[in-house]
Amino acid sequence: MTVKLKPLFNFDNLPTPELIGNGLTGKDILSVEQFDQDKLKYVFARAHEMRELVERVGHCDLLAGKVASCLFYEPSTRTSASFIAAMERLGGSVIPITQGVQFSSVSKGETLADTIRTLEQYSDVIVLRHPEIGSAQVAADYSRVPVINAGDGAGEHPTQALLDLFTIREELGRIDGLKIAMVGDLRYGRTVHSLTRLLTQYDVSLRFVSPEILRLPLTIMNHVIDAGLDVRETHDVADVIKNADVLYVTRVQKERFTDLAQYEEVKDHYVITPEIMTQAKEKMIVMHPLPRVGEIHYTVDHDPRAAYFRQVKNGMYIRMALLAAVLGRA
Amino acid sequence: MTVKLKPLFNFDNLPTPELIGNGLTGKDILSVEQFDQDKLKYVFARAHEMRELVERVGHCDLLAGKVASCLFYEPSTRTSASFIAAMERLGGSVIPITQGVQFSSVSKGETLADTIRTLEQYSDVIVLRHPEIGSAQVAADYSRVPVINAGDGAGEHPTQALLDLFTIREELGRIDGLKIAMVGDLRYGRTVHSLTRLLTQYDVSLRFVSPEILRLPLTIMNHVIDAGLDVRETHDVADVIKNADVLYVTRVQKERFTDLAQYEEVKDHYVITPEIMTQAKEKMIVMHPLPRVGEIHYTVDHDPRAAYFRQVKNGMYIRMALLAAVLGRA
Amino acid sequence: MTVKLKPLFNFDNLPTPELIGNGLTGKDILSVEQFDQDKLKYVFARAHEMRELVERVGHCDLLAGKVASCLFYEPSTRTSASFIAAMERLGGSVIPITQGVQFSSVSKGETLADTIRTLEQYSDVIVLRHPEIGSAQVAADYSRVPVINAGDGAGEHPTQALLDLFTIREELGRIDGLKIAMVGDLRYGRTVHSLTRLLTQYDVSLRFVSPEILRLPLTIMNHVIDAGLDVRETHDVADVIKNADVLYVTRVQKERFTDLAQYEEVKDHYVITPEIMTQAKEKMIVMHPLPRVGEIHYTVDHDPRAAYFRQVKNGMYIRMALLAAVLGRA
Repeated sequence: MTVKLKPLFNFDNLPTPELIGNGLTGKDILSVEQFDQDKLKYVFARAHEMRELVERVGHCDLLAGKVASCLFYEPSTRTSASFIAAMERLGGSVIPITQGVQFSSVSKGETLADTIRTLEQYSDVIVLRHPEIGSAQVAADYSRVPVINAGDGAGEHPTQALLDLFTIREELGRIDGLKIAMVGDLRYGRTVHSLTRLLTQYDVSLRFVSPEILRLPLTIMNHVIDAGLDVRETHDVADVIKNADVLYVTRVQKERFTDLAQYEEVKDHYVITPEIMTQAKEKMIVMHPLPRVGEIHYTVDHDPRAAYFRQVKNGMYIRMALLAAVLGRA
Repeated sequence: MTVKLKPLFNFDNLPTPELIGNGLTGKDILSVEQFDQDKLKYVFARAHEMRELVERVGHCDLLAGKVASCLFYEPSTRTSASFIAAMERLGGSVIPITQGVQFSSVSKGETLADTIRTLEQYSDVIVLRHPEIGSAQVAADYSRVPVINAGDGAGEHPTQALLDLFTIREELGRIDGLKIAMVGDLRYGRTVHSLTRLLTQYDVSLRFVSPEILRLPLTIMNHVIDAGLDVRETHDVADVIKNADVLYVTRVQKERFTDLAQYEEVKDHYVITPEIMTQAKEKMIVMHPLPRVGEIHYTVDHDPRAAYFRQVKNGMYIRMALLAAVLGRA
Repeated sequence: MTVKLKPLFNFDNLPTPELIGNGLTGKDILSVEQFDQDKLKYVFARAHEMRELVERVGHCDLLAGKVASCLFYEPSTRTSASFIAAMERLGGSVIPITQGVQFSSVSKGETLADTIRTLEQYSDVIVLRHPEIGSAQVAADYSRVPVINAGDGAGEHPTQALLDLFTIREELGRIDGLKIAMVGDLRYGRTVHSLTRLLTQYDVSLRFVSPEILRLPLTIMNHVIDAGLDVRETHDVADVIKNADVLYVTRVQKERFTDLAQYEEVKDHYVITPEIMTQAKEKMIVMHPLPRVGEIHYTVDHDPRAAYFRQVKNGMYIRMALLAAVLGRA
């Protein structure tokens, strides 16, 4: 069964790809625990280069011909759009599977493992969002191409934590020596937990501002204390606003309260208004993982210290850096 | 926190981009009211070049590296596919957010303004479809990148009106001097309203053919009269078929009638059949914004005067021209 | 209405595209019946080249600037992702319409014919998945660009049959002389029917293993007998495991049985376990169209004879070959 055709492609003299020794090539990105200071420095330096690239030129062809599967079992416009933009600005392509996964193979009873081993055949990297904790690890166990965890339920969302830390570094020029206040729902806020874990690698002061029932979980608090950091807890953002270099705000959800009177009583202590911003330092930043629903007033947006939309853009740079790194091109 | 890496990119000797003085670069496309004769000529000339490009070569790299967010809060396969194709044929990329927006950030209560300011971080241009009138203006107020209105409810759908007018020009070689008949639901038909507004800039005769309860709104009729155009209203397409250079057909929906007997009585007066086409001029065109449901018989499709699918293709050319223009590349 | 602009494009000295005489250029891919031995050899040779391309380089620009509409009226992550990856690895672009078609134009009553004639304006090729038998033929009748049938209900799914046959050839180096066993639901299994039809062009032995109520339909069995092939039917995979070169497994669905006791009694006869694999030849392959739900144990995946994920990848190569062929580039 041979057939003589003029070959479409010439494979002579293929250049040997020069893989860059970044310690991330071919690796999965599953947890912030993977990132020590060296890796953080590396990723942040690359992300800063990506920022320069986008600001000056817009795009490059570093990942030309590379294909990323974006497999989102739950919708997240912000995160999926960020990964798609990151891939496209690096010259790569995307297989977007961001809706309706539940109606397809999966509903026919296919396991996550089989879905991953299918997409692995088509893609150079898989970006996975899944509602179940541990799902990203399962995917990584089965995939021979790198898996990037874009959020696995109550588990991890490492690229969010990296973009948060990168934002502090880009905005304030350093991380060591800063006073960082986390505000709002510190009990269930996945982004707060991951960012806090990353910050224990630095010499920072931490302030945790929350209602009593939404205080930081014990395990994370002990982790902070073990790291020897200066740490305090409080119930009112007014207690920390004067000295904070970073105000990291998250939403206090009404649904967390069984006693609504209690919610009504405390809720205003966690809202950022132009008035409270008058007490803040001149050089500091307000961050938020977004979406927000009233916990930062819209009038604060005009304040140059409002960094949350620049934070969004930093997410694209971090994802560009990580995609290039795991694919051996940065 | 410095780390010494071999730089990925070389930013020396970047060429200075030569922005083209088209009056549209960096601008939003929100309404047909933005387009005077000079701008129309400009856009149509560029769209004609896009047509030549696609017919001869298929594509180019004018927008290589540019990223468009296509944010569709209501489904519109025709319009979203047209913008995606336009972007891709110019060498650009798309972040498609055409489904499930309602399940994502938005359902978490995020405002349109915040969604726009998020996508602005990732994209060079935002194409927005939204069910609420005025939403495109809101988006434009918040976005620093150009917003193109792809339909905001009962409001505007400017690219549709431009493609309609462009189709007349491409098919008949001119606009001045033509007899143009609008047929069907003239009361609620957004496309009819926008096209009529654009046509008041030209020296045309207008004929409005509709059931009594679906006559052109007073404000638009007065606008036409103020422009000094030759205009008549009638209840039957048979009254205009002989002299029309353009027959612009829209659907008469049963739901508009409270008295169904009345609907049954008049509906056939607005249906285009091969029989009625025998009375039309040899050189004229039948247009329709699509989708159609019976108001143009399928047997009319074989008539060379049936221009509605060529009209669809012109939509891609107009959108290519506009995307290139607002991005400063045409 | 002329306007003098510096032209964007220069169309002088355009190279004349050299269409390759493969007998597929410009053609629709609707049914396996289109493929005689010569065409199969051609497609498989090209698909093998695509495999080399992807393994060595990952991608090429053979279809740069080409746009494929992927119109999926029912979700199929595996198939749509495969076509998207195929197009992207050839340097082309995709208009993905893989969800919500039912909420869009279609729900406004538009016919498939009109939807196709709309997408034809934007695209160089249309990939269609539709739940109704015969829909791909309808689409092809109306489209002037090639239509590739990605499954039309109980009808055909030709690219699946081609990738199945290609897998046998790639894995075992030949097709003639092989003993091929089809296992499971042979009555309703569309993939079994199409692959069987293709195999009648070769000198193979066929074994059909199914419960009584899921036996191969009469018409296909007669087709096999007419082709003069060595053929046997049996109720237990144990009867064929020792001599099979290929074990093509499909699912026996509980829902097919009116008598559940009967289902419980026979179901284990069609499950592939590590134990039964000990009886199989050393050089043979297990295939499955996927998704699977228990009919092949997960522990079999580690067996080098388990070819079903390589089969998935072959699907991408076959689709790359077909896309390049119908677009005149291979």
